[in-house]
Amino acid sequence: MSTKQLNAGIIGAGRIGKVHAETLAFRLPEVRTLAIADVNRAAAQAVATRCGIPSVTESSEEILANPEIQAVLVCSSTNTHAGLIVQAAQAGKHIFCEKPIAHSLTQIDQALAAVEKAGVKLQIGFNRRFDANFARVRDAVVRGEVGTPRMMHIISRDPAPPPISYIAVSGGMFLDMTIHDFDMARFLIGDEVEEIYTAGGVMVDPEIGKAGDLDTALIVLRFQNGVIATIDNSRQAAYGYDQRVEVFGSLGAISTGNCYPNQAVVSTGSEIRRDLPMNFFMDRYTESFANELRSFVDAVREDRPTAVTGIDGRIPVVMGLAARKSYDEHRPVRLSEISASEVAVSQPPAVNV
Amino acid sequence: MSTKQLNAGIIGAGRIGKVHAETLAFRLPEVRTLAIADVNRAAAQAVATRCGIPSVTESSEEILANPEIQAVLVCSSTNTHAGLIVQAAQAGKHIFCEKPIAHSLTQIDQALAAVEKAGVKLQIGFNRRFDANFARVRDAVVRGEVGTPRMMHIISRDPAPPPISYIAVSGGMFLDMTIHDFDMARFLIGDEVEEIYTAGGVMVDPEIGKAGDLDTALIVLRFQNGVIATIDNSRQAAYGYDQRVEVFGSLGAISTGNCYPNQAVVSTGSEIRRDLPMNFFMDRYTESFANELRSFVDAVREDRPTAVTGIDGRIPVVMGLAARKSYDEHRPVRLSEISASEVAVSQPPAVNV
Amino acid sequence: MSTKQLNAGIIGAGRIGKVHAETLAFRLPEVRTLAIADVNRAAAQAVATRCGIPSVTESSEEILANPEIQAVLVCSSTNTHAGLIVQAAQAGKHIFCEKPIAHSLTQIDQALAAVEKAGVKLQIGFNRRFDANFARVRDAVVRGEVGTPRMMHIISRDPAPPPISYIAVSGGMFLDMTIHDFDMARFLIGDEVEEIYTAGGVMVDPEIGKAGDLDTALIVLRFQNGVIATIDNSRQAAYGYDQRVEVFGSLGAISTGNCYPNQAVVSTGSEIRRDLPMNFFMDRYTESFANELRSFVDAVREDRPTAVTGIDGRIPVVMGLAARKSYDEHRPVRLSEISASEVAVSQPPAVNV
Amino acid sequence: MSTKQLNAGIIGAGRIGKVHAETLAFRLPEVRTLAIADVNRAAAQAVATRCGIPSVTESSEEILANPEIQAVLVCSSTNTHAGLIVQAAQAGKHIFCEKPIAHSLTQIDQALAAVEKAGVKLQIGFNRRFDANFARVRDAVVRGEVGTPRMMHIISRDPAPPPISYIAVSGGMFLDMTIHDFDMARFLIGDEVEEIYTAGGVMVDPEIGKAGDLDTALIVLRFQNGVIATIDNSRQAAYGYDQRVEVFGSLGAISTGNCYPNQAVVSTGSEIRRDLPMNFFMDRYTESFANELRSFVDAVREDRPTAVTGIDGRIPVVMGLAARKSYDEHRPVRLSEISASEVAVSQPPAVNV
Repeated sequence: MSTKQLNAGIIGAGRIGKVHAETLAFRLPEVRTLAIADVNRAAAQAVATRCGIPSVTESSEEILANPEIQAVLVCSSTNTHAGLIVQAAQAGKHIFCEKPIAHSLTQIDQALAAVEKAGVKLQIGFNRRFDANFARVRDAVVRGEVGTPRMMHIISRDPAPPPISYIAVSGGMFLDMTIHDFDMARFLIGDEVEEIYTAGGVMVDPEIGKAGDLDTALIVLRFQNGVIATIDNSRQAAYGYDQRVEVFGSLGAISTGNCYPNQAVVSTGSEIRRDLPMNFFMDRYTESFANELRSFVDAVREDRPTAVTGIDGRIPVVMGLAARKSYDEHRPVRLSEISASEVAVSQPPAVNV
Repeated sequence: MSTKQLNAGIIGAGRIGKVHAETLAFRLPEVRTLAIADVNRAAAQAVATRCGIPSVTESSEEILANPEIQAVLVCSSTNTHAGLIVQAAQAGKHIFCEKPIAHSLTQIDQALAAVEKAGVKLQIGFNRRFDANFARVRDAVVRGEVGTPRMMHIISRDPAPPPISYIAVSGGMFLDMTIHDFDMARFLIGDEVEEIYTAGGVMVDPEIGKAGDLDTALIVLRFQNGVIATIDNSRQAAYGYDQRVEVFGSLGAISTGNCYPNQAVVSTGSEIRRDLPMNFFMDRYTESFANELRSFVDAVREDRPTAVTGIDGRIPVVMGLAARKSYDEHRPVRLSEISASEVAVSQPPAVNV
Repeated sequence: MSTKQLNAGIIGAGRIGKVHAETLAFRLPEVRTLAIADVNRAAAQAVATRCGIPSVTESSEEILANPEIQAVLVCSSTNTHAGLIVQAAQAGKHIFCEKPIAHSLTQIDQALAAVEKAGVKLQIGFNRRFDANFARVRDAVVRGEVGTPRMMHIISRDPAPPPISYIAVSGGMFLDMTIHDFDMARFLIGDEVEEIYTAGGVMVDPEIGKAGDLDTALIVLRFQNGVIATIDNSRQAAYGYDQRVEVFGSLGAISTGNCYPNQAVVSTGSEIRRDLPMNFFMDRYTESFANELRSFVDAVREDRPTAVTGIDGRIPVVMGLAARKSYDEHRPVRLSEISASEVAVSQPPAVNV
Repeated sequence: MSTKQLNAGIIGAGRIGKVHAETLAFRLPEVRTLAIADVNRAAAQAVATRCGIPSVTESSEEILANPEIQAVLVCSSTNTHAGLIVQAAQAGKHIFCEKPIAHSLTQIDQALAAVEKAGVKLQIGFNRRFDANFARVRDAVVRGEVGTPRMMHIISRDPAPPPISYIAVSGGMFLDMTIHDFDMARFLIGDEVEEIYTAGGVMVDPEIGKAGDLDTALIVLRFQNGVIATIDNSRQAAYGYDQRVEVFGSLGAISTGNCYPNQAVVSTGSEIRRDLPMNFFMDRYTESFANELRSFVDAVREDRPTAVTGIDGRIPVVMGLAARKSYDEHRPVRLSEISASEVAVSQPPAVNV
């Protein structure tokens, strides 16, 4: 293990920026966060005070121009990601960037080209790979514990839909929500998807339909190696955050249940019951957010490839575009049909993740 | 409740004929089985001895000609079902017939027409509707316990594939195995399917592919009411018989796990484990086989409609043909595309179920 | 396997007599039940009609005098068991007798002496040994799957207390209810208990206390081999019939959960829940009642020792007397302190089980 | 909530001292740890470096003499606890002290008297009260979710025994290990224990017996309110750390299972399995260690009573002495039999927890 100190800067002090700032401050003593930037200075200041970050600014340029900073965390709104990656790469900074890189493949390709040219490291924030449950499933697949995978089912349902105003600029459910599941599918199977078929509809809120989006979808993936997978997405589950997966292979199956705040079971005169699952991603994925940063920091300090590369950031966007095309055209769509000129249905304005 | 005695005859003394004979003999004292027929007289004799059936014959005609017999159980091979239904209806017998009625819609329609003309009762052997787990799920849907259904997932995997010789004459996985799941889908949601999309392949045994069939499939159903459902079928699951379902609705979800021979959990130095699920349908669905006959007998004795009608026997065959067409043509197929002239890929010769 | 037919007679046509009559009639074709006796002739007649038993009588003597009958099932009230065993043994009949043999060790010893003198077979109705869950636990212990046993916990709670009128004549909770658990403890560990300590009280209904009995007890057993076990008994559990066990050994532990009418789990906005366990012994132990008779019939037909002997019927009564003595004297009591002259707190009159 | 900063000092830089230092540093920004002391200066220095503690010393006196320090965490070996409490109280510091206070009731009473005289706050380190599982059970009892408690079972088994050298100075299993369960019993029921009966033995390692201790015990508690409880303790469980509880009451029961590193279930051709539970207390109780310090810090800052008082520290020691006396004298022992002059079987020398 390297003993080198790493100096970091954070761009974006919203919900996820705050989480990452806390991880760096309280769990990764080998990192010093020198500065945090946000157009909302008060938000940046609050995080800085809590986490002992010495410098606060409204300008991401100031972070990128700081020669002491070796790595930046891009936690600003999605529409700024690609541009900041380009600038950070040109400034020679290693980059941790929240998902998605962009909704436009052209912008993504420009960002990845800049990273490659600069020779800096880039990790995309697909944190769920670092969750103990999904990591266990991946491990089973790698070790052949369930044999050769044949089918996979991902269930990924949110407790409640975001505001319509957010929906309208989210890039659509496939790029905003399913993108995590697209990454999970590739991660667990360790192969590329060839074709996507989407069935879905507006079952939760007609306003979501009016905004041009879906709220419920069943997506069938066919991998190059023949594995068939489904993703079940809903913007609303009455019982809370539902995050499960099952991989079925030639020697057996592995499945993960939800995580609960406690293991208590209550037996009464009317039923046997337990409390609801952990309610949303900040609770359920607390550890995975910390683990992904640890992985990034280690990759930088030890000069190893990152665990989630720029290509890993690009492909789920292609999948999201294919899923939407399948839904619109009511037929299976091959990923090779998606060209770089395709863009998402809507362009998101500035919203902090 | 009626106190009338019902006199029955059984055609077919194979595995399922024996099960039904035992149910009538040992669980339904209101039924007297007067005769059993099988081309294999020794098989019929063995069942008769065990169950106290007074008459044994090789001829189904003899059963149908017996004026004392009010109801017949058609448990012979699939290719004889439709013809026997026609003859039994013409003889004025009430009919319990194993699934499927036939692989040809023309034959099915002839059989159903004969039943309608004769005014006799017909029940198709979709026994799983009478399983406590699936009945509980249906009950939840009916009572609105999980609100308006949005998505459903059926997992139905067999422990091991049948012999290739059987595969070759089975009518294909969709008509032989999935047909139960098609019925289950309609039963649980209580609505009709509009469109089917099939992804699948040969993953278990290449010989199955050479026989023109699949062994692994993921089938997406779109119901008229908008519900989206999947059926996950595999001819082989290393851990045994896997029969689960999940219905997800606006107010929650209901899911059923597998049934186990015992509830014991063993904790050792290497893992926490339990024994494998009940291994195949004769163990898992013991009670549902008895329950379906009780339901049929009650319908006849109390002159009520049967719980699984001729139409309930016809539609899953249409679905099977649509599923195959979707797989062959690599596109979603509407049920309305399946005309009565379509037949299954192969015609099954005489094989006892 | 023997192919000999066995002719049986049944004494007692109450709840358990009816269950056994049905098992013989519908599950054990190698047994012919020739006659059934009950002081309530109508009850005997109803069972005879349902199960095709040709002869009905009010007199147990008539059964015992029938030279065709080889084996009798003693299903009458507890206070008649010992006397009937003596008479049946003298008549040369093999005997299946419901638990307990008697509440008085003197009577038990007379019955066992008569059995020994006559050289007939005797099996006591500790049906739970034949339940799949407990049999699996015993199997684990025998095979060393959890190593050398160190501790064991039996939880045995009824859904609701019987009427006070029954309590008053039941012999007390230890001889009426715990007796099953005493047998289970010996069966699972395969060793004898040396000492018993009882803590308990009246927590369910003060009327039970006024009748001289307890309704809640925690009993500590020390086996000769050093194993320490507990039995948790309650006459009332709000959620129904609670029957669990855990054996903890040097290599691990095995525990059994309750049995449920279905495997469905419902997730709603307020909790994750499942239905209540199977509610009482007739549902929960259906199979074990059938299995114990099969075991008895096989033992008779194949001239092998029975699975639950007269001694197995005697020792739990000793344990029940010791448990009560411990409770009364507030100290651990050794089984060797219980002499044959001890009797239970009350003598039960005629009540069908 | 108070916004006051709290200045703390830590005495003892062993395993638990390090855990508490990290909690203060990384989770409780309202606390500044000014100094840490350990006779092993290198250990203290390592913790100080990791947690940013400015001052390191070998002398606890130096900590207590520091006027800026308002609260001390006593994490040194058990035999120093009582003395340090007295000194800290005299120095006017609030005190968080690891369990047990001492093995001698005389020493405990001196410590508690000093605390009372000084009017400082004292919290004892029974962290498990702050575990989400046990807190949920307590909550159910308080809210009457399971009605009036009748029985309770605590299972508390360690993965493996400590070294014999540790056993010899541990004060015996009851004061070293069961003490947590004694506290849990009082906490969950919210009442005092009147009488204790102990059955137990040496089943894990004869060397433990030679050291005068047990390694396996079943302890029966009778509470003043009539509740009967058991504690099942083992120094070794093959499958790891086993920490469960069940409270059974008039309206139902609540039970907690173990905590697992993941929720994955693997189905193979031989069994259905999951990984072993979290292996030991540092993993299983991570959050409860942090929660107890948060509770202490809040109590000090907001001038409220602590959640685990000095009396809560004293009574489990009385219970431990009674449990041992019961084991030695082979009879139920009332807590009122334990006088302040009783001491544990052995006096522990300096060992860091």
